[in-house]
Amino acid sequence: MPIRKTVAAITLLCAGLAVSSAGAQTSEPITPVRPPQKLNVGMVELGKKLYFDPRLSKSGFISCNSCHNLSMGGTDNLPTSIGDHWHQGPINAPTVLNSSLNLAQFWDGRAADLQAQAGGPIANPGEMGFSHTLAVDMLRSIPAYVREFKQVFGSDKLAIDQVTAAIAEFEKTLVTPNSRFDQWLLGKQDALSGEEVAGYKLFKDSGCVGCHNGEAVGGNSFQKLGVVAPFPGDKQAAGRAAVTGKDADRFNFKVPTLRNVELTYPYFHDGSANTLSEAVETMGRIQLGKKFTGSENAQIVAFLKTLTGDQPAFTVPTLPPSSDKTPRPKPF
Amino acid sequence: MPIRKTVAAITLLCAGLAVSSAGAQTSEPITPVRPPQKLNVGMVELGKKLYFDPRLSKSGFISCNSCHNLSMGGTDNLPTSIGDHWHQGPINAPTVLNSSLNLAQFWDGRAADLQAQAGGPIANPGEMGFSHTLAVDMLRSIPAYVREFKQVFGSDKLAIDQVTAAIAEFEKTLVTPNSRFDQWLLGKQDALSGEEVAGYKLFKDSGCVGCHNGEAVGGNSFQKLGVVAPFPGDKQAAGRAAVTGKDADRFNFKVPTLRNVELTYPYFHDGSANTLSEAVETMGRIQLGKKFTGSENAQIVAFLKTLTGDQPAFTVPTLPPSSDKTPRPKPF
Repeated sequence: MPIRKTVAAITLLCAGLAVSSAGAQTSEPITPVRPPQKLNVGMVELGKKLYFDPRLSKSGFISCNSCHNLSMGGTDNLPTSIGDHWHQGPINAPTVLNSSLNLAQFWDGRAADLQAQAGGPIANPGEMGFSHTLAVDMLRSIPAYVREFKQVFGSDKLAIDQVTAAIAEFEKTLVTPNSRFDQWLLGKQDALSGEEVAGYKLFKDSGCVGCHNGEAVGGNSFQKLGVVAPFPGDKQAAGRAAVTGKDADRFNFKVPTLRNVELTYPYFHDGSANTLSEAVETMGRIQLGKKFTGSENAQIVAFLKTLTGDQPAFTVPTLPPSSDKTPRPKPF
Repeated sequence: MPIRKTVAAITLLCAGLAVSSAGAQTSEPITPVRPPQKLNVGMVELGKKLYFDPRLSKSGFISCNSCHNLSMGGTDNLPTSIGDHWHQGPINAPTVLNSSLNLAQFWDGRAADLQAQAGGPIANPGEMGFSHTLAVDMLRSIPAYVREFKQVFGSDKLAIDQVTAAIAEFEKTLVTPNSRFDQWLLGKQDALSGEEVAGYKLFKDSGCVGCHNGEAVGGNSFQKLGVVAPFPGDKQAAGRAAVTGKDADRFNFKVPTLRNVELTYPYFHDGSANTLSEAVETMGRIQLGKKFTGSENAQIVAFLKTLTGDQPAFTVPTLPPSSDKTPRPKPF
């Protein structure tokens, strides 16, 4: 994405110019999270309601927020998710936080962007178990939603594209600036302890930043899991090969963001690592061929915990009630 | 509860004195919802987190807010609720909104107050499926929770009584003042349309206020369902008899609040009425022996929709992350 890279480069340059006199770290492989820009506020508000609305599921019980819980780092903190009729999902739910920074969505990148992603779970029988047609029929039966879609999109058209566009616009607000690490990057030298700075140095020197870099500390490439040694957990997932059809892409996954990683346990596509310490140990060993000592591991974990930024802070939305004509959910 | 009634009477008297010159309705059987008072703010904030924390369930997926969703009138808008492993609950989830005004909790009043209620679903195998011991063990493993309990309760003790006390304190904030009907009661004559006022008059003259009265428009007595004609839905629930053991109390239920009733569909203990119109028709017929005309039914429904008050408006809580020692949920 050349345009994106150019923008990032310009921004980095400007950031460097603006704060270099204040002691900012200007040549780091990780860049601060920028607050969202150029958002359509009306669309964000509509998308927020839809994100929290379980009527987008067949059961009327599961919303986007069920598995990408904004009280819990944008995840469900489960190895794999619970779907319609308690279906056990095949893969760990990635965080929605900072997901607008990803080069593509889902672990295998099968959705190009947030809007393409948002339609997936609604119609997945093992997730929300609904259909796009039924979801739109439900929304069209609710006068307050009909009015709000009309206001936001300037048209009477209410189709799945408007639904997913609004959800995606809301999700773009879910970035988490102002982590202690970003404060340090921007010049606040006492934002990090010596242990945390040492952890960051180790994170760089060991090669972790080869994949975990940029604004999201990840999310910008697909990589093979198990470069030096085999991954100890699930080995069945196809990974990127499910999208490209290429055998060389088997077990390639989108590198997850490490922003807010303290909140997004358990780790890996199969949720097989319960703790950051375990995840660091595994990644060092299977990706880099390194065996971190206990104190090195602790330093890296200390650094990773400085990546927790400002969590989403907005008023719980009030959903418009169903009308007498709204088809009722089918929970059982 | 004589003390409560005395307080209510004094409040009503004072309200009458204060606003009578402004044209307030001073002798109505329904009284305005009062904003909450004398709350422990620290305990409210802790209780809010607990209310939204799915780690209080065995699966790590179900929180208080799952079935008493504060985006949806404090209910799940399902006939009966979904519990652990998609268990189908036996009874409709009552709204948590204004539940502090109820004479007791649950449809059969088996919990004396909100604190007694809050422990029930956590340990119910068909709801959150956990145990009080495991819930407390989970909380004790999370340093931020341990600190917050200590700050709020001034003690290192962290047991189920503190957990339920905090949840109950938060729930006391969930009253919904400022409905259009309350504005009208307090003197704003143009807050209601002629149709709505006619609906209220019919609601009174038909005898609905015999049970649906007071601050919550219900919630203050147990009554037999099916006085004049049999209830058309589920007839298996024991009702109040499950608590008293008296056959005379069979199919007696706590009269539900009608505050926010537009939002709390479907109606009755079995959730068998999908619309307000249907619920009004049934109640008139089986409780009062009345057959409302179409326009009478519409007037009463119009009145009922004026009982929607200010919905809870607070920032989505951020939950403290589990520690490495926190026992992980068992979703499957």
